[in-house]
Amino acid sequence: MNKPKTHIFVCTSSRVNGQSKGFCHSKEAGNIVENFLEEIRERDLGAEVFVSNTGCFSLCEKGPIVVVYPDNVWYGGVRPEDVEKIMDEHIEGGKVIKSLEL
Amino acid sequence: MNKPKTHIFVCTSSRVNGQSKGFCHSKEAGNIVENFLEEIRERDLGAEVFVSNTGCFSLCEKGPIVVVYPDNVWYGGVRPEDVEKIMDEHIEGGKVIKSLEL
Repeated sequence: MNKPKTHIFVCTSSRVNGQSKGFCHSKEAGNIVENFLEEIRERDLGAEVFVSNTGCFSLCEKGPIVVVYPDNVWYGGVRPEDVEKIMDEHIEGGKVIKSLEL
Repeated sequence: MNKPKTHIFVCTSSRVNGQSKGFCHSKEAGNIVENFLEEIRERDLGAEVFVSNTGCFSLCEKGPIVVVYPDNVWYGGVRPEDVEKIMDEHIEGGKVIKSLEL
């Protein structure tokens, strides 16, 4: 199969058997997911970059959380407006954003 | 922060704004998550191995899907009873299970 080159995981506090509830979800994590999807579409990176929403990472006090694999880079306190910067500097530029890194 | 050495993602068809619905969820993905949590607890690997449920990976026809990062190994058609084997051979043994790999 064609694996994505980069896989971005956004905590949306999605529960296995129920609705999304919790800290990251309340902090507009859904908008973070939407912004990633829009940036990936606009940059035509759909074949290389995949975004997934996830359940809780048990780091709620540092949320919203975004994790980039296989780089294994964890970002905290991410706002929807940080998505463009993450795409520019990390996903396309290959540089970890120290100010957001956990 | 202490990052997990291995991060296992299980598609539970979790939707950003709603309930888990869809193929993987209907295929007992919730039991796969539960089995991983139980194996990790029993093996005392909680500090090294983390499990997350996720939204759809757009590979529904190959589900249920389990992805292991940073290894970037994708497994398909995973059954709850495969979890012990994945823990033994891959997570603890470091060997990819070819029969399940996508």
